[in-house]
Amino acid sequence: MKLIELYAKMKKDISYIEKELERSIDTDHAMLRETSVHLLKAGGKRIRPIFVLLGAKFGTYDLTRVKHVAVSLELIHMASLVHDDVIDDAETRRGQLTVRSKWDNRVAMFTGDYIFAKALHVATGLGNPAIHQTLSKAILEMSIGEMEQIRLFFNAEQTLRDYLLRIRRKTALLIAISCQLGAIAADADEWVSNRLYSFGYNVGMAFQIRDDLLDLCGTEKEIGKPPGSDIRQGNITIPVIYALREPGLRVPLMQELRKIQEADGQIDVSRFIGLIRGSQGIRQAEELANRYIDKAIAVLHSLPDIQAKKDLIGVAHFIGNRSY
Amino acid sequence: MKLIELYAKMKKDISYIEKELERSIDTDHAMLRETSVHLLKAGGKRIRPIFVLLGAKFGTYDLTRVKHVAVSLELIHMASLVHDDVIDDAETRRGQLTVRSKWDNRVAMFTGDYIFAKALHVATGLGNPAIHQTLSKAILEMSIGEMEQIRLFFNAEQTLRDYLLRIRRKTALLIAISCQLGAIAADADEWVSNRLYSFGYNVGMAFQIRDDLLDLCGTEKEIGKPPGSDIRQGNITIPVIYALREPGLRVPLMQELRKIQEADGQIDVSRFIGLIRGSQGIRQAEELANRYIDKAIAVLHSLPDIQAKKDLIGVAHFIGNRSY
Repeated sequence: MKLIELYAKMKKDISYIEKELERSIDTDHAMLRETSVHLLKAGGKRIRPIFVLLGAKFGTYDLTRVKHVAVSLELIHMASLVHDDVIDDAETRRGQLTVRSKWDNRVAMFTGDYIFAKALHVATGLGNPAIHQTLSKAILEMSIGEMEQIRLFFNAEQTLRDYLLRIRRKTALLIAISCQLGAIAADADEWVSNRLYSFGYNVGMAFQIRDDLLDLCGTEKEIGKPPGSDIRQGNITIPVIYALREPGLRVPLMQELRKIQEADGQIDVSRFIGLIRGSQGIRQAEELANRYIDKAIAVLHSLPDIQAKKDLIGVAHFIGNRSY
Repeated sequence: MKLIELYAKMKKDISYIEKELERSIDTDHAMLRETSVHLLKAGGKRIRPIFVLLGAKFGTYDLTRVKHVAVSLELIHMASLVHDDVIDDAETRRGQLTVRSKWDNRVAMFTGDYIFAKALHVATGLGNPAIHQTLSKAILEMSIGEMEQIRLFFNAEQTLRDYLLRIRRKTALLIAISCQLGAIAADADEWVSNRLYSFGYNVGMAFQIRDDLLDLCGTEKEIGKPPGSDIRQGNITIPVIYALREPGLRVPLMQELRKIQEADGQIDVSRFIGLIRGSQGIRQAEELANRYIDKAIAVLHSLPDIQAKKDLIGVAHFIGNRSY
């Protein structure tokens, strides 16, 4: 299935969520409205709200209830991107100027704070303390993930486990709770929401691995920013970790890494990217992503055979083959 | 009353909250633990937890319940300080290195995110959605206050109303909800918690005005950082707004402001401070602070005459005369 078909099918509900998103960040404060609208208009796949909506189909689907969770999760994602762009010194995202480059890092920081707080405030509309607990825990873990990323910048000794733990916190957790909280907001059974959490977790891991592969193997047009931006900021991703294990590659890769670090990322990284592309790391990372996708689909097995289940499997396959 | 006497009297409960604070930021993540403990050890007056505890005395005082609110509010305050230091480019706070100067701005940003999320997570321990709503709303408003501060840096045309709105968001709101949520967590009547909110709001306004006066009139030893740091970063506070209204002062003040702005704050500001100290602005700001204190005390009038009421009045007087 193509993701676009799913969007077409869910169009009405997604438009509703999009309007609620716009409404949620509407504020009297001109600068904040500008930065938030800028972020919103920059687009994004709204993958988290889609997971929320699909998760909710396993319970009593009520968009006026589920919207609180869908909007909240997309806002958390948006806020994390704004703060992420600060540490990445990112100039563009999705082909658009970032808040930190259009305004400055300080504005980006408080815009992120505002959107995080708004996300939690929106979720209070459901009056369910378990949801706040899950959401605030997710933001906690995401902050730890970001700190881990900073700590391990340019660290070639980091393990596969370091990487997996990091992307678990940075990405997989939020997708996991998107699926889970969608079900919870629709009063689905607990074993169902737990399964959906597990599905989302595995899909999220694959999603991030695919994203990291894309930064090394994609074109600037596909990615929306120049390839190699991960390594320029020192972020060592899974294909690199695998490639560093290859005896013939370790030494030249370490040399390139040192050069990139010394130049603070302001250097041509095409030789580094070439080495990675020529390594086994790409294939190994793809295989791991596929294993996560297989696991995600297997988890759904015991759930009722409703259309949403087929759609979730479709999204999982899409992410598994993701090339943009 | 001296604040120290109140601390002595409440020592047991304050120590308990302090331990809970320590416990709340305990994490497996070494760098986050370091930054958080650094912040905690840097001290602070723990004025928000004290307001929470005193507010709770108007209901059924149960420290094991009230602690969630007390810890949460102090964490929100701490997180806002970390993010504040980033925009202030502050090197020291309370005589200690700030997180951003000991580590860097990125670490400070994620430490702040972590502590904000922790604050909200701690509060879920009470299972009361109204509390989450109030807390997330407060963080929202604080972010807007910070953005306003950035927007109005070095803007000599800003009005008294701009200033009051800003400190309402930056400071008064959090103190207001400290008093209010303390009462709510102790199941006090709603009219009581509303009064306490109003008390805290007025005390908070006076508190910030006093703080801004201190930055202009205090010594480095009293403030814990060099005087004039507000104006060096472009933050125009109430004595300055008043002084700018004096015909003989406006022109020389504008000249000094321009010099400070052009030097990006890296300049001797003693002439500017001298002009303000010699203006009517100091006295006028003191008078306004006193009016807020009077209003705060008047609000308490209808509340039951328990010891906590006397203590709140004592704290208000302390803040009214605050010289450190």
